Amino acid sequence: MFSDRFDQLVQALRILPSVGPKSAQRMALHLIMKNKEGAIGLAHALNEATSYIHECGICHSLTENEVCDICCSTERDDQLLCVVESPADVMAIEQSGSFKGKYHVLGGHLSPLDGIGPEEIGIPYLVQRLSDGKVTEVILATNPTVEGQATAHYLVEATKHLSLQMTRIAQGVPQGGELEYVDSHTLSQAVHNRMKMK
Amino acid sequence: MFSDRFDQLVQALRILPSVGPKSAQRMALHLIMKNKEGAIGLAHALNEATSYIHECGICHSLTENEVCDICCSTERDDQLLCVVESPADVMAIEQSGSFKGKYHVLGGHLSPLDGIGPEEIGIPYLVQRLSDGKVTEVILATNPTVEGQATAHYLVEATKHLSLQMTRIAQGVPQGGELEYVDSHTLSQAVHNRMKMK
Repeated sequence: MFSDRFDQLVQALRILPSVGPKSAQRMALHLIMKNKEGAIGLAHALNEATSYIHECGICHSLTENEVCDICCSTERDDQLLCVVESPADVMAIEQSGSFKGKYHVLGGHLSPLDGIGPEEIGIPYLVQRLSDGKVTEVILATNPTVEGQATAHYLVEATKHLSLQMTRIAQGVPQGGELEYVDSHTLSQAVHNRMKMK
Repeated sequence: MFSDRFDQLVQALRILPSVGPKSAQRMALHLIMKNKEGAIGLAHALNEATSYIHECGICHSLTENEVCDICCSTERDDQLLCVVESPADVMAIEQSGSFKGKYHVLGGHLSPLDGIGPEEIGIPYLVQRLSDGKVTEVILATNPTVEGQATAHYLVEATKHLSLQMTRIAQGVPQGGELEYVDSHTLSQAVHNRMKMK
């Protein structure tokens, strides 16, 4: 609209998730008119992050070093391994403060129709990682979706020969939710997986 | 979380309007994991835009040149001048395709409590711009807020000595809106400003 570079900035901002044409315009105007310094800082942070952040050599989460802080940590329980689909899930579980073991990031879930099989999400590498006998319990924290469930079941099968405890994060009604707004599949799972209180 | 540069990117993304900590995290992960090329492109577009885009010397909208395309255009009506608060408003009116004159961007509205008086939004410059007699009608398209209205009224006073037609964009019910959801102030304005049909 105002100039080619303005349009290019609007286009570039549209790669951000959930940013449509209107939001991108608003962001571009905000940056140019109210926060040029911030925009330059953002450009710098983007260049730095894309240059230095990559996958951890052990767990496939993100890090600037060869191995990430969690994998390096001596304070975390080496016997517990939490398997998740993406680094975003590592972040969510870390923020919940509920887990003090180590992680393994698959980088996706099984999806045969999209050509994503066990090799593509590194299951052979995970099985090999578990073979040294250090880990005693694997917590399967793939997403509670059809694909996430299938991936969890596949992992149980793939590690049958190892003497490991395999657990799955609990599925039921989310805290603070109201029953009447919970979908019926979740509700039937919650009834099925009911816990003894007395 | 994963590394300092990751946290810096999340922080940098938070300068974008309506981006909170969760969205910023999601954006950072998306850029690093799924679209590094796009992130580098965005950094480049930010650097280019902040270096080259600035205010137009005549209308104070945005441009890469000394004077913007609209001010330069010989196809637009020099006698009509639309006064708006910000370049975003120029964009909105241009996109509506309803105006073929020229613009004047104030860069804000009168707000005495915040120390923004006529000088701060360049009203003396606008009055001077109008003094050469080229413009015959000024369309006041400041926002329909208390401050925008006050600014429009101030402009009428400030240009009393010039033989100019001053008009204000119509206020009423927005198209496609349902009356029952329109606020009562807008509704009372719409009744007050009713138009003759027969």
